[in-house]
Order: sequence, then structure tokens, then C-alpha cells
Amino acid sequence: MKAEIISIGSEILRGQITDTNANFIAKKLVELGIDLEHISVVSDNPESLLSSLKLAFQRSDLIITTGGLGPTEDDITYQTIARTLNLKLIKYPEAEENLNKILKKIHKTISPSNLKQVYLPEGAKIIINQYGTAPAMILEKDNKIICSFPGVPHEMKNLIEEYLIPYLKEKFPPSMIKKSKTLKITGLGESSVNDLIRDYMNKQTNFTFGIYANPEDIQVQVTTQASTEKEVEKLLQSSVNQLTKMLGNYVFGNDEETIEEVVGNLLRTKKLKVAVAESCTGGMLGEMITRTPGSSEYFQGGVISYDAKVKEDLLKVPTEVLKKYGEVSEQVARLMAEGVRINCHSDIGISITGISGPGGATEKKKVGLVYMALADDEKTITQKHQLFGGRQLIRVRASRRALNMLRIYLMGK
Amino acid sequence: MKAEIISIGSEILRGQITDTNANFIAKKLVELGIDLEHISVVSDNPESLLSSLKLAFQRSDLIITTGGLGPTEDDITYQTIARTLNLKLIKYPEAEENLNKILKKIHKTISPSNLKQVYLPEGAKIIINQYGTAPAMILEKDNKIICSFPGVPHEMKNLIEEYLIPYLKEKFPPSMIKKSKTLKITGLGESSVNDLIRDYMNKQTNFTFGIYANPEDIQVQVTTQASTEKEVEKLLQSSVNQLTKMLGNYVFGNDEETIEEVVGNLLRTKKLKVAVAESCTGGMLGEMITRTPGSSEYFQGGVISYDAKVKEDLLKVPTEVLKKYGEVSEQVARLMAEGVRINCHSDIGISITGISGPGGATEKKKVGLVYMALADDEKTITQKHQLFGGRQLIRVRASRRALNMLRIYLMGK
Repeated sequence: MKAEIISIGSEILRGQITDTNANFIAKKLVELGIDLEHISVVSDNPESLLSSLKLAFQRSDLIITTGGLGPTEDDITYQTIARTLNLKLIKYPEAEENLNKILKKIHKTISPSNLKQVYLPEGAKIIINQYGTAPAMILEKDNKIICSFPGVPHEMKNLIEEYLIPYLKEKFPPSMIKKSKTLKITGLGESSVNDLIRDYMNKQTNFTFGIYANPEDIQVQVTTQASTEKEVEKLLQSSVNQLTKMLGNYVFGNDEETIEEVVGNLLRTKKLKVAVAESCTGGMLGEMITRTPGSSEYFQGGVISYDAKVKEDLLKVPTEVLKKYGEVSEQVARLMAEGVRINCHSDIGISITGISGPGGATEKKKVGLVYMALADDEKTITQKHQLFGGRQLIRVRASRRALNMLRIYLMGK
Repeated sequence: MKAEIISIGSEILRGQITDTNANFIAKKLVELGIDLEHISVVSDNPESLLSSLKLAFQRSDLIITTGGLGPTEDDITYQTIARTLNLKLIKYPEAEENLNKILKKIHKTISPSNLKQVYLPEGAKIIINQYGTAPAMILEKDNKIICSFPGVPHEMKNLIEEYLIPYLKEKFPPSMIKKSKTLKITGLGESSVNDLIRDYMNKQTNFTFGIYANPEDIQVQVTTQASTEKEVEKLLQSSVNQLTKMLGNYVFGNDEETIEEVVGNLLRTKKLKVAVAESCTGGMLGEMITRTPGSSEYFQGGVISYDAKVKEDLLKVPTEVLKKYGEVSEQVARLMAEGVRINCHSDIGISITGISGPGGATEKKKVGLVYMALADDEKTITQKHQLFGGRQLIRVRASRRALNMLRIYLMGK
């Protein structure tokens, strides 16, 4: 079965809103094992909508529309569906009753423009909308299904959860259960990941794979299906294990896990506390670590040492070292990490100092040059990176590299 | 002229990401006066993409694709465009040169999968991508235009701004010039903004208005058109002036201006330096201030005082005060701001201490309770807020309130 979403609304085409409804529905269809083949955004121009609906009826079996059910002139979804399928619009008394109830609640009376909202294509199974004035519907015709929901996100979401999902589950009991797992990778580029696992991926027939690139991590998604939940889980796990073997330490987590959560769990397990000393990232590393609820268990705080005086006073980096090597140097990164560890009473100190640009570069030190260090009570390790991207991206990448340095360190503990 | 966007990527149809690229392009087309009639999302299945491209060539004059230009097997945009139009794929040496340059910068060598990225349909005007490995292109054929951009948002945005917009402006000089201006407002809710300007908006016939709500600011967009650039600017400015009069100090900026830029400009003009002391925000306020290039001119740094010991040692908040009033209190906020001002050698100290949740609340101090303070060499002012939202939203809101407190303070200086 092929599914298609039609998002109706000129405000999407004019760039006034982003169509987030389609994403919600897409996720639901994946869970049901239904293949979504197209998302079409179309204006509320009658001829445009008519031709999009005709096309959808040719190429898809399940069509879900959102939007265009309101009371104004440009809300033409039901009229146009009726035209597409040569159906009459008929009055649904239960829609009128609900409309009166809703309007009474918000102390309004029914207006002539509201009245059109109670006419739906004949044969439609009406869905009463307790969240707003626009009724939704499911209509079966010629072995195809078209259903229409309001464009207001919370109305659409509630009605789809309460009516469409149970309807589809009953109508198309999934014979196969389809699931995905995602491996999250940091420190490798998209093409390197692809090169490492290409041969494996090409040999598989039970799985499909996708590789996606974010600013600082790469995700490999494995999808498979089987007749039981247990079977799917087993299959997925075997593939995840294989991939993890091939990608090694670059894999930092699965699915929704973030690197700051992974690091947080390692710190908690090993009962270690960390503090940060940040120059070019200006607080971003601390901000990332503290996104995780409960991070006060392992995060002491830190120093944002943007100015050299702060490095001297709060991190005890000697003036001579700053003068001799410059603020962006391995020596300063090292002393920052050691200083913040001691001054913030933590087991581990991490530091970042770099040039995030666009200004501040010299002949020898280019934009994107970042030094980072990790100090514990025995030793200090340092890293040098030449990062790529604009100012903010360099800062994000530097913070995530520092988190990854901490992750690798903790795994070896 | 009819335009169409094709967003290519199975990850959109599987609900893994929301297609935000289309929204960006839609906005740009509005500015150019070009009608966007369709947005189509299609998978990276070759046959699906082929039929979508064929349809687009039938019904649209300008086709903009995003996605599917990467190095992996499922990146098939150029191959499929070539098939659709019966063109050969040919090697573009300038693409190969750029690829080598980019890979060298990040210390990687060209891999076999990268190599396919240098083949584009013959006749394409190549757009070298200095932000990534995938070249973009503009191709004119049979009085139609197809252009392809990477799916990575920042690459797509930069390349469209730098190449596609100037190209379209020259090719299709708009008869009427349409422009928008945005007022950015903080400290007022959407319905309050609406109430303050409703009468004015209803009386206008030359302008259209939109009010949009973000997590921490409200935007009012005014749009108008006229035959000359100068005329449009004049009209827009008159409306912006009227609206600003009605909304007063709540307006912090226009268009793309951010509150941290506005604050940065004020600090620079008044030659003042600021330092931050952050508890619940964990570094976010510092991170926001340092997003602006050149912020080292007015930002000294600060202390992330997550743990009480850091408040005592680095901010000199006395143990007794912490014990008596608790870490989340007006008294502690005050001493944090004063302490960081002195210890970081700045003119102004700002502090935030609060409960961002989900843990840490008590009977009297609920999640979302945030105290902030601003200290200069004469006085310290404090604010108390009860903020709403999840952990991260409370932290964003707290940081932006603190920036707004600083903005109002600086305007009064």
C-alpha cells in the first residue's frame, strides 16, 4: 500500500509556516508499517488542489489531507474532494450539533461561514472534532481511502491518534513488524562511515540502511521487519552489533541518546566530577553538559575565561605562559584544564581554547584552530583540532569534540 | 512563472526530519515575487524521483531540488535529473578541485564515494560549494530552469543566498517589489501584542501583517509592495515606526537582529564590559553573548557556579548566606552578580540562579523559579521570574530575560 500526505495551505507555500504536520503523520505511518511515498504541499487554489488530488488518486492508495477545513472562503478541501470523486456534499447533522456546542463554549454564535463546515462528501465517515469547529472524515472509495484532518496541529494530532490510527490498525493489521535502530557516530565523516560499512551494507538483504549527517555526528539507521516483535529486535540487534564492531569507538550511542547523556552516565557510574574552562566556546560546553537533568551530580561548574585576565585570576594561568605561547596554545589549554580542576574541586578538568572567527586569526593560527585538554589527578592529555564551518558551527564542533575526548577517557577508566 | 520545490530524502518521508529547507526557499521566492505552486517531498528511490521530476517539468517553470547530492549510494539527484532530461553526466574539474581543497582542509583524502560528487548533468552551470563537498548547479533547458542544492541546511542556505537569488533577480526582474520588515518583541505575550496593535492593523489597506510566536520572542511582520525599492522602504518604515510607538520598549530589534547583538552594540557604544555568573543555565548566557563575532570587546567571561563550593570560592558568596537563603534566592543572585563583576574585572556583572527542573523543586520554590541580578559599581538590581516550559525552555527563557534586563539597563545609561 502506498500512502501520500497532502498538506493544503497557501501559508506553507508563502513560507509563513513550516509544515510540521507531515512529519507527525510520517512517523505514525512508519509505526504502522505503511509506506509513505509522497508529501505534497498545495495551495488553496481550487484547480491546483483538484489536480493534486487527482494525481494522488492515481498513484496512492491511502491519502491523508491536512488543512483547508476552516470556515473561510479559501477553505475548500471538502468541496474539492467531492469534485475529484464526483460526489455530492451533504449536510451532517452531528457536525452541526458539535459546531453549536463548540461555539457555545467560547461564547460565539454560529455564523454563515461556519455553516459550510457541516457539509462533507457523501459516504464520508465523519469524525467529530471536540477540539475545534472543523469535522474530520475517512472516506473509502474504489478500494482507496482518503481522509481529511484540520491543519491546526493539536487538533490534527489528537484526531489522528484517536481515530485514524485505530482505524488503520484494524483495516490493515500489520503482517510484518517493521523497526529501526540508529547508531550515533562522532569523529568520522559521512564518507568515511560509508567506506567502513559499504561492503557489509551491500551484502545484506534483510536490512535497509540510511546514513545521515548532522553538524557534528553521523547517524546510521538500520531497518528490518519480521513477523514478531522479538524476531525484529533480535535481527536489529545482530546488525547493530556487527556495525558497532566495524565502527568501533566512534559509535557513542543509539537512537535518541545524546553524547552529553552518554558522558553523564559514564561520570555517574564511575563517580567522577567534571569542571570546564572555556574560551572560544563561551559557556557552550557547560550548557551542553547541563542539558541533562540531574547533571549536578557530576558537574561542578567552571570558568568562562574569555579575557586573558580571567585565565590568570580564576584559572591561575601564569602571565608569562600567556605571553609566550598565546591564549590559543596547547600550553594554555593544559593549564586551563589543570586550573579549573583544582579551583572547582573536581576530579577532571576539561578546557577549550581556540579561534572561532571570523576575526582573531594570524598567519600561523587559522580560524578553526582549537586546543583542548583533559586533566585528572595524574596527568593531562591534550588535543589539537583544525575545525571547519562558520563561527557557531566551529564552537558546536569544538564542544562536541571535547565531550568525545571525555567519553573516550572515561571508557578507558 | 510557476515554481516548485522538490525535497529529496527518504528520511523526511520516514519522519526522521522535518523539511525546513522548503520553508526557507519559499520565503526567498516570495521576496522575488515568484509564485511557488508546489512543494513535493520524494524518497531517494530512483523511479519515484524520476516520476516526480518528470511531473515537475510538465507543470512548473522553475524547479528547485534540495538533497541527494552526498557521497553515498542513495544520493541520486544528479543521475536522475540527467535521466529525466536525457543528458549525460560529465566530470566537472572545478568540482574535483574544490573537493580536494575541502578534504585537505579537514585532513582527509578523496574516497571512491566522494568521486561521484564531481559528476553533474552536461550543460549545468556548476556552483562551487565552499561549505561542503557537494557542488550545486543551475541548469536551463527548454525554457525551464532546474537547480539543485545540498540538503544540509546551512550549505543550502548560503549557496541559495549567494548564487540562486542573484541569478533569479537578474533573469526575472520583478515588476512590483514586495518586501517585509519584522519587529522583534520580548517580554509580552502573543495576545497582548495583538491587543496593542489590532486597531491599527485593521485600519491598514496597504499592508499585510503576521504575528508569530517563538519560545521567547514575538515577531510582528509587516509586508507591502510598490513599484520602486525606495517607495517600498518608505512605506515599510512608516508602518514600523507606528508599530514601534505602540509597542515601546518591548521592541528590541528588527528583522534578523538578535537580542545578543542588540546588547552587544549597546555595550560597545557605551564602552562597558560584562561578566556572567550562571547556575541553572550552566553557561548558556555566556554562550549566547559570545555568538556575536567581536564579543571579546565587551565580554570578559564568567563563572559557571553549578556547585555551591564554586559559588563560595570563585564568586565569594559566603557559606552562611547560601545556608540561610538557599542557592536559589535573591540574596545569592545579588552576591553572584557582585562577585563576578569584581573577580572578572568588568563594569557589569549579571547572574542567574534558578530551578530548571525536573528535580530540585521544594514546597516554596517551584520548577521555573529564577532569580537574576545585575550589578554595576553603584548598585545591584534583581528580578524574580516564574518561568514555564521544560528544562531547556526554562533555561533559554532565563538567559533571554537576563539579556533583556541588561538591554533595558543599558538603554537607561
